[in-house]
Amino acid sequence: MAPQLDGYFQQVDALSDAFIERLRQAVAIPSVSSEAARRPDVVRMGKFLADELVKLGASVELRPLGKQEGTDLDLPPVVLARYGNDKSKRTILVYGHYDVQPAEKGDGWDTEPFDLTVMEDGRMCGRGSTDDKGPVLGWLNAIQAHQVAGIDFPVNLLMCFEGMEEYGSDGLDDLINAEGKKFFADADAVCISDNYWLGTERPCLTYGLRGCNYYSVEVSGPGADLHSGVFGGTAQEPMTDLVRILGSLVDTNGNILIPGIAEQVAAVTAAEDGLYDNISFTMDTLHEALGSTTSIFEDKKRTLMGRWRYPSLSVHGIEGAFSAPGAKTVIPAKVIGKFSIRTVPDMDIDKTNEAVYRYVEDVFSKFNSKNRMKVYAQHCGKWWVASPNHWNFSAAAKATERVWGMKPDFTREGGSIPVTLTFEQATGKNVLLLPMGSSTDGAHSINEKLDKKNYIEGIKLLGAYLHYVAEEPTN
Amino acid sequence: MAPQLDGYFQQVDALSDAFIERLRQAVAIPSVSSEAARRPDVVRMGKFLADELVKLGASVELRPLGKQEGTDLDLPPVVLARYGNDKSKRTILVYGHYDVQPAEKGDGWDTEPFDLTVMEDGRMCGRGSTDDKGPVLGWLNAIQAHQVAGIDFPVNLLMCFEGMEEYGSDGLDDLINAEGKKFFADADAVCISDNYWLGTERPCLTYGLRGCNYYSVEVSGPGADLHSGVFGGTAQEPMTDLVRILGSLVDTNGNILIPGIAEQVAAVTAAEDGLYDNISFTMDTLHEALGSTTSIFEDKKRTLMGRWRYPSLSVHGIEGAFSAPGAKTVIPAKVIGKFSIRTVPDMDIDKTNEAVYRYVEDVFSKFNSKNRMKVYAQHCGKWWVASPNHWNFSAAAKATERVWGMKPDFTREGGSIPVTLTFEQATGKNVLLLPMGSSTDGAHSINEKLDKKNYIEGIKLLGAYLHYVAEEPTN
Ligand SMILES: [Zn+2]
Ligand SMILES: [Zn+2]
Repeated sequence: MAPQLDGYFQQVDALSDAFIERLRQAVAIPSVSSEAARRPDVVRMGKFLADELVKLGASVELRPLGKQEGTDLDLPPVVLARYGNDKSKRTILVYGHYDVQPAEKGDGWDTEPFDLTVMEDGRMCGRGSTDDKGPVLGWLNAIQAHQVAGIDFPVNLLMCFEGMEEYGSDGLDDLINAEGKKFFADADAVCISDNYWLGTERPCLTYGLRGCNYYSVEVSGPGADLHSGVFGGTAQEPMTDLVRILGSLVDTNGNILIPGIAEQVAAVTAAEDGLYDNISFTMDTLHEALGSTTSIFEDKKRTLMGRWRYPSLSVHGIEGAFSAPGAKTVIPAKVIGKFSIRTVPDMDIDKTNEAVYRYVEDVFSKFNSKNRMKVYAQHCGKWWVASPNHWNFSAAAKATERVWGMKPDFTREGGSIPVTLTFEQATGKNVLLLPMGSSTDGAHSINEKLDKKNYIEGIKLLGAYLHYVAEEPTN
Repeated sequence: MAPQLDGYFQQVDALSDAFIERLRQAVAIPSVSSEAARRPDVVRMGKFLADELVKLGASVELRPLGKQEGTDLDLPPVVLARYGNDKSKRTILVYGHYDVQPAEKGDGWDTEPFDLTVMEDGRMCGRGSTDDKGPVLGWLNAIQAHQVAGIDFPVNLLMCFEGMEEYGSDGLDDLINAEGKKFFADADAVCISDNYWLGTERPCLTYGLRGCNYYSVEVSGPGADLHSGVFGGTAQEPMTDLVRILGSLVDTNGNILIPGIAEQVAAVTAAEDGLYDNISFTMDTLHEALGSTTSIFEDKKRTLMGRWRYPSLSVHGIEGAFSAPGAKTVIPAKVIGKFSIRTVPDMDIDKTNEAVYRYVEDVFSKFNSKNRMKVYAQHCGKWWVASPNHWNFSAAAKATERVWGMKPDFTREGGSIPVTLTFEQATGKNVLLLPMGSSTDGAHSINEKLDKKNYIEGIKLLGAYLHYVAEEPTN
């Protein structure tokens, strides 16, 4: 099957230096979407992608999304592109994002974060290398290798690359919904490469994601920050109330203490119970990724369930309090705690929000505090589960076996990629998550990397997937 | 008594524009001691003071203090100065500090923090205006007004102005102890102007201060920050443990939940119990200073006790967690909570530390967490109580009545000025706290100000105090 693939694979190997150079150019653009001052860099990154696509013969549009909510700042454009328009071929819609998380050398990076550094062990370190510039460029590289090798591209490719993923994908849902029956109308399936293998050895195909409800708890009292010497012992302190609220949400072993959450979680069926043992995952993989052995569970099955099919609650930080090194004797006047809940089937967003609000208000009311407290969701994204028996998945499974010489694990993920659900709903088509990087890549952390092997074999995988997609019978 | 004072007062009024201009020049130097990058400004501020003192005929030394602990950064010098060396006169040692708290317009200031702005209502807004550049310049202004008016200066003045007060007074204790029987040897009493009136109407003399033990609680686990989607529900999170610890320390009404603290506090005697009613202080004053009515108590007496004679515990913030606006789904790998306890007679520093360490370790051990936890004191300063019957205090009381037309309150303070105790111990002499600013000045907050009236009358007060000191019989 797919006899042209050997020639394609050889061409990918032959072009590998050029592909790494393309990634270096992309990483060098600090397209940090959360920082207003970096917005011109995000836009520059979008234009870089558009230029590369035009050179490859794609038709490209840089679609403006208007202003960022609550600001006067233009959102970075979405790169909408089409490569091929042959009615006899299947059409695959792919998504990726060209913005990145913030990064500064001073955060603890071993290398300059925006200077892709290829290590002797094959790690290619740099912000965005694996999340998500490597995978996005993977599609461009696949097109180029086909062209140079003179191999017919097996499908029509629709591309949607956004620049605000790391900061809430502002404006993207509206675009996807509006284009579902227009620009995306002839898509037969969707493929997203923006997640990771479960470990470092075996590739996976992902058919489920947790959702995420992100909350703020605001406590305020005094008109301005106070000196604790002067006012300590006479003023009710917002921080006192806030840390007591934050300390009431979850325990050390991840048990969510908010009533009305666990009740919504789908029960484990006997069929599901048997799935976990065969997954290529060990506690060593987890501990290596953690950089410690501070896991909640000691066994693989309960750990995978904790990541995939149970909700979790994380406290992220506090805005408005003293956060620098050293000592400052301040009583902050207004503090905002941030926490989020990862949601799973069959949790409902509104029901979950109500449970959170009711609980936090209840905890606070017991303090009899004169301070003001407000709890609200900053953003909510639903969980997603797709059918892994669709031809979209079987094509990807065959491609994986061909490139990596092993069957992929069928996995779910703990993180949220809200756009997955939006594409599913807007197109009505099957969505596949086809990761390129591995579990130790450190997306969102310091020293983010993509292994050279994962990049190059990943480019082969994306191309091979399209060839099998072209052959796979409809199911 | 003190017949030359009228001429002195007239001269202070005549020079008031020049004195405000001097304060403007001082405020314009952003001598923020906590920021390494501002160190040259702190040094520049010390030199500015030294130059002004030399112009006034004082003998001045800029005493280096070596390197800041744990850094390669030079500490700002201490300004040591003497004005007058007449053996027939008393010698008064005065202390102040020329460094300031950090300030940025973006923190919420209505005016540029380092540009002294005189409002129509008499507020002079700017960082350091009241803490402590106004009072420090008060001594210089008093000298100048005497010279211009041709009035003999009534005492010898020893001056000690430091540049690290807002960042722990690194190196100062050693200097004071070393100079106690040398440069400070002929001091007959000490006067410190670095605190505030209890309210806004009646001046006060302060004879007691709370101490301060400042603590860090460090919780760490993972090797690097993690993504809560991937690791939420499988890793024990340091923030979860930390907020539970911080939430166990104190309740909304300021009750410290750590056993072994309340037991150390001196009982209220009948004599003390009667002192509070006469103090010029109302709940309105407190609420105005708070900018809210979120006080712990509804009555003045319990409020004053809460500020002066009971310990308090404030949670200041968390280092290492997410602290910016917006949403970030991070699991911080290492977080450091900061809190402090204000201490009172008869609390012991070591006993208090032990109680804190034991309690925090006990709370943490109940979590059965695999994370690492460390609790330690960053710095500790003892409480201080002086004799308010000393001639140093009666001279200040007479000066207050002469300048302000009313008897001062004898007060204690909730804050710490650790150097007070050091001066008392190194010189063996009585120490008086003689404040210039009022309770609404907002030292350490945004919109810090010194009222023009407090500045100008305060300069009169400092001079008058020295005249009464010269006349007061030894007791
Ligand atoms: Zn991503
Ligand atoms: Zn001060």
